[in-house]
Amino acid sequence: MKKLKRSARLVEMTQYLLNRPHTLISLTAFADRYQSAKSSISEDLAIIKEVFEEEGIGQLQTLAGAAGGVKFIPRMAAEASLDIVRRVCRELEQPERVLPGGYLYMTDMLGQPNLLNDVGRIFATAFADRPIDVIMTVETKGIPLAYATASCLNLPVVIVRRDNKVTEGSAVSINYVSGSNKRIQTMSLARRALKEQSRVLIIDDFMKAGGTVQGMMDLLHEFNATVAGVGVFVESGEVGTEDRLLEDYVSLAKLTAVDLKTKQTTIVPGNYFDTE
Amino acid sequence: MKKLKRSARLVEMTQYLLNRPHTLISLTAFADRYQSAKSSISEDLAIIKEVFEEEGIGQLQTLAGAAGGVKFIPRMAAEASLDIVRRVCRELEQPERVLPGGYLYMTDMLGQPNLLNDVGRIFATAFADRPIDVIMTVETKGIPLAYATASCLNLPVVIVRRDNKVTEGSAVSINYVSGSNKRIQTMSLARRALKEQSRVLIIDDFMKAGGTVQGMMDLLHEFNATVAGVGVFVESGEVGTEDRLLEDYVSLAKLTAVDLKTKQTTIVPGNYFDTE
Repeated sequence: MKKLKRSARLVEMTQYLLNRPHTLISLTAFADRYQSAKSSISEDLAIIKEVFEEEGIGQLQTLAGAAGGVKFIPRMAAEASLDIVRRVCRELEQPERVLPGGYLYMTDMLGQPNLLNDVGRIFATAFADRPIDVIMTVETKGIPLAYATASCLNLPVVIVRRDNKVTEGSAVSINYVSGSNKRIQTMSLARRALKEQSRVLIIDDFMKAGGTVQGMMDLLHEFNATVAGVGVFVESGEVGTEDRLLEDYVSLAKLTAVDLKTKQTTIVPGNYFDTE
Repeated sequence: MKKLKRSARLVEMTQYLLNRPHTLISLTAFADRYQSAKSSISEDLAIIKEVFEEEGIGQLQTLAGAAGGVKFIPRMAAEASLDIVRRVCRELEQPERVLPGGYLYMTDMLGQPNLLNDVGRIFATAFADRPIDVIMTVETKGIPLAYATASCLNLPVVIVRRDNKVTEGSAVSINYVSGSNKRIQTMSLARRALKEQSRVLIIDDFMKAGGTVQGMMDLLHEFNATVAGVGVFVESGEVGTEDRLLEDYVSLAKLTAVDLKTKQTTIVPGNYFDTE
């Protein structure tokens, strides 16, 4: 790269950091990249850090020492997150979203890259400080949420299949009971998709009693992997606490009531926004 | 937003533009956001434009006039794209990726956010100048590619299902013949997922004869929608030209030979890199 003026270097460093979240970049690497003294680079980073933190873009963590450097941690401030989720709740409350059986149509929302990027950043904020190796979801609607989160956390994604496809090689299958309708279903994951001992963050779009998430946890057990966290976009609050299969999860929104006759629903911010 | 110094403003504007690809932002909006004169904003944009273009990040299109403003178009230069695809080809040629039936295991690669972001930018470059309303893919492995592309093009995604889920409402189903193994399969799309007359970019992970893509085209016909383009990550070159169901598509890589005995495969850059 040719030597840049400070103003151009700030632009370049900003895009470089934004494209490499949760990645440690040494001062030396920056100094080499921009053919500049480390002292200049440090000054640049101080400017970027201040803007990122003031504007709620994220943190710029500085690690001192020989192995030191800088790491961009995308974050979404609580207030901005709540604004976004409140907008999601209002949008989800539209009567035409109520489908037969009390399901909620939200596929279109999970198809909007802007919203997904925001939601990914909220999940990435919620789980930023946990040690995680990989993000897992089950097809189909959780996939975009898992990738949006993975993109902010710089982690790979594995997708659990509801069938066992020939293009995946040998796989582990389990049966699980979907908590809400008591049907027995199958999910499977390719043997080579997940290393043993992995610490796994589970992300899904909707959770009723939690049978599907519980199924993924059982599958993880088969891989000697552990659950590092569970994040769901919308949880159904219509499930009694005694029927809920898991307790430790983060939800961004909560469906508290569905009136099938009037098609009125009530959706409120989820437990991520609970203040003790 | 409080008034920023030029250096801080450059950082903020860079992140603002990067997060809003293919979105027209008026000079007035920037001037208001940063409480700065339009002349200062124009100077900042000139610096950002030069860095983005020199470093191959993308274009900053300036539109003059009352409705004018600036638009960030993510691009990946041909040389950088070819480097990435060559690395993908080498990685895909590993013998342990050959599965029974001559399938190629590439699910892990489609789980890496960094690679997906790169591939998304390549597809976004390939289709940047076509009028497109929505990106379509079929579950499951094409989904991350579709989102990565959509994120760069600022477009929504619709996902065609291989079943007809209760949570989607009324849907249109079609049968199609998978060209490679001649089996009849079903795919469906929720009625409300796609507006009539939409111009649709189809993205998928793998194409053999093109039966699945042809199925999506037939489905589009049911919605009075049109095909704006077809992009596939890897195409199989083992299909004779006379068996190929479609001609107008962009492929990033091409599987030219699979030896099931030795598990040797040959994968080369796809037709996107063809030079006439």
